[in-house]
Amino acid sequence: MAEHVLPFDKAHTKWNKALPPAIEIDAGDTVSCETRSAGGRITPGCDAAVLSSFNFDRPLPLAGPIFVRDARPGDVLEVEIQDVRPSRWGWSGIIPGFGLLAEDFPAPYIYHWDLSNGRDTALREDIVIPLDPFCGNMGVCPDVPHEVPIVPPGNFGGNMDIRHLTKGATLLLPVQVEGALFSAGDCHAAQGDGEVGGTGIESPTQFTLRFQVRKGIDLPGPQFLVPGPLTSKYDHAGYFATTGVGPDLMPCAKQAIRAMIAYITRTYRLPPEAAYVLCSIVVDLKISEIVDAPNWIVSAYLPLSVFRGSRDRAQ
Amino acid sequence: MAEHVLPFDKAHTKWNKALPPAIEIDAGDTVSCETRSAGGRITPGCDAAVLSSFNFDRPLPLAGPIFVRDARPGDVLEVEIQDVRPSRWGWSGIIPGFGLLAEDFPAPYIYHWDLSNGRDTALREDIVIPLDPFCGNMGVCPDVPHEVPIVPPGNFGGNMDIRHLTKGATLLLPVQVEGALFSAGDCHAAQGDGEVGGTGIESPTQFTLRFQVRKGIDLPGPQFLVPGPLTSKYDHAGYFATTGVGPDLMPCAKQAIRAMIAYITRTYRLPPEAAYVLCSIVVDLKISEIVDAPNWIVSAYLPLSVFRGSRDRAQ
Repeated sequence: MAEHVLPFDKAHTKWNKALPPAIEIDAGDTVSCETRSAGGRITPGCDAAVLSSFNFDRPLPLAGPIFVRDARPGDVLEVEIQDVRPSRWGWSGIIPGFGLLAEDFPAPYIYHWDLSNGRDTALREDIVIPLDPFCGNMGVCPDVPHEVPIVPPGNFGGNMDIRHLTKGATLLLPVQVEGALFSAGDCHAAQGDGEVGGTGIESPTQFTLRFQVRKGIDLPGPQFLVPGPLTSKYDHAGYFATTGVGPDLMPCAKQAIRAMIAYITRTYRLPPEAAYVLCSIVVDLKISEIVDAPNWIVSAYLPLSVFRGSRDRAQ
Repeated sequence: MAEHVLPFDKAHTKWNKALPPAIEIDAGDTVSCETRSAGGRITPGCDAAVLSSFNFDRPLPLAGPIFVRDARPGDVLEVEIQDVRPSRWGWSGIIPGFGLLAEDFPAPYIYHWDLSNGRDTALREDIVIPLDPFCGNMGVCPDVPHEVPIVPPGNFGGNMDIRHLTKGATLLLPVQVEGALFSAGDCHAAQGDGEVGGTGIESPTQFTLRFQVRKGIDLPGPQFLVPGPLTSKYDHAGYFATTGVGPDLMPCAKQAIRAMIAYITRTYRLPPEAAYVLCSIVVDLKISEIVDAPNWIVSAYLPLSVFRGSRDRAQ
């Protein structure tokens, strides 16, 4: 049950089973890591222009790989999220060509967050977002004979951006290669289900994970356990929701988010770019129904608790 | 501010703007209704065989239409859900050819629920589901010159099956025709986001709605306000979640539910048909990420609070 520190100077930007492990551990061990970058040339106070040349071939680097002794293909790697602590600064933005509504928002946009109180952060004086940090990217190395980009997730995990993998949650991943070769990064201080704008609150982050190896379970893809309520930091003031209705879930999601951006800009007087970023950080996409053929419904839920001093302003 | 009773004997099974109104009301009025049917020949204790001949041309009838004086095309009809009370019995099932996993479950299946305590109901002695009732179908009449089936929802609302439209919520619908011609029905005593099996807990239900007309808002489709936490009846014991990863959200959702059915059958020793019904009643589909091209993630969340006397049995 050793405690390790994973150095970040060996961070990598591709999945690659030929990479030498940064550290080797035993099942039961704990690993801590502090990521130092939140996206290449993006630094506190920098201009949105840097996002015009965001390099998806060199995106947010991952710490690792961690070689877990006794983890073999077919086993399950259990990752207990023991702690996740963002730094004092984060950013969110619009990266041209990226995000659910890339066609609506061609220009780069950036917002820098003050995370220094460790509890919440403000988009505007009266729009306050509780921090709910997690690692957007946690995965085991795919078993392929070449490099694999780290932006798309897969059945090996990776860039899943699942907002509920916060402190206390346990992630299960199907091991693909000897030693698992686990890596993690792309930490977010907050993010809604969907990450519709393409970024969460991206922040250099300190995290601690504990690893176990389970034998004899056939896992088709990532699964996880969250020990308590999912959105208790957001729930108390209720939600305003928009919908998208139609025969394809992707346009439904776009329709719901467009309606939400219209609602936010009209009700809270935010510019559309800031409203889109707010959607990415706090709005949750749910599939309300997926059976009433031929039309499905995706709903976008906005937690009203983030608006301070503004009671129910629905419409 | 009159209180009306909407008779159910004029219930209809198509949207049709030529139908004479069942009642006429003013903005501000309240309407109560008791639905008497939960699906044609489906009665307490009936055999699953009736679902083999489920008639989608004559599905669950709707109470209405309600003509709201002063509601005109372009206005918004506001529907406050004041009360929803299921009867003492409900059913859920597998209707051949219907549901997210229709190809996996070709045979009819039915489960009859005892709702008599008004608080919760059991799938098995140790699997207890809190009631969280709502009207699956609430809509204004589409403005088309012919009959429209009531199973698919649209921007007029209708069969949206949005589980959070429970007591206290307010639904906003864009009025399509003079008088709105609102109808409601298909009440569910409980249902997860997605309604993956194709049924909720279908039950004859008494509901009370209050109507207002709002002018000067451009509403692209249904929107709604939920005043408090979304899943407080389910949250306390946490969730187990499965995922589907890939370039199309529909197969992602199927993959996540297939993994969840495998998990439930293995962990809680339910037959696959009952596990599928349980998914339809309590599992929530969320879009975890929709931006990490080319792969999106749909996650299925199972609330562990429904399993009594069985602490965390994850894996």
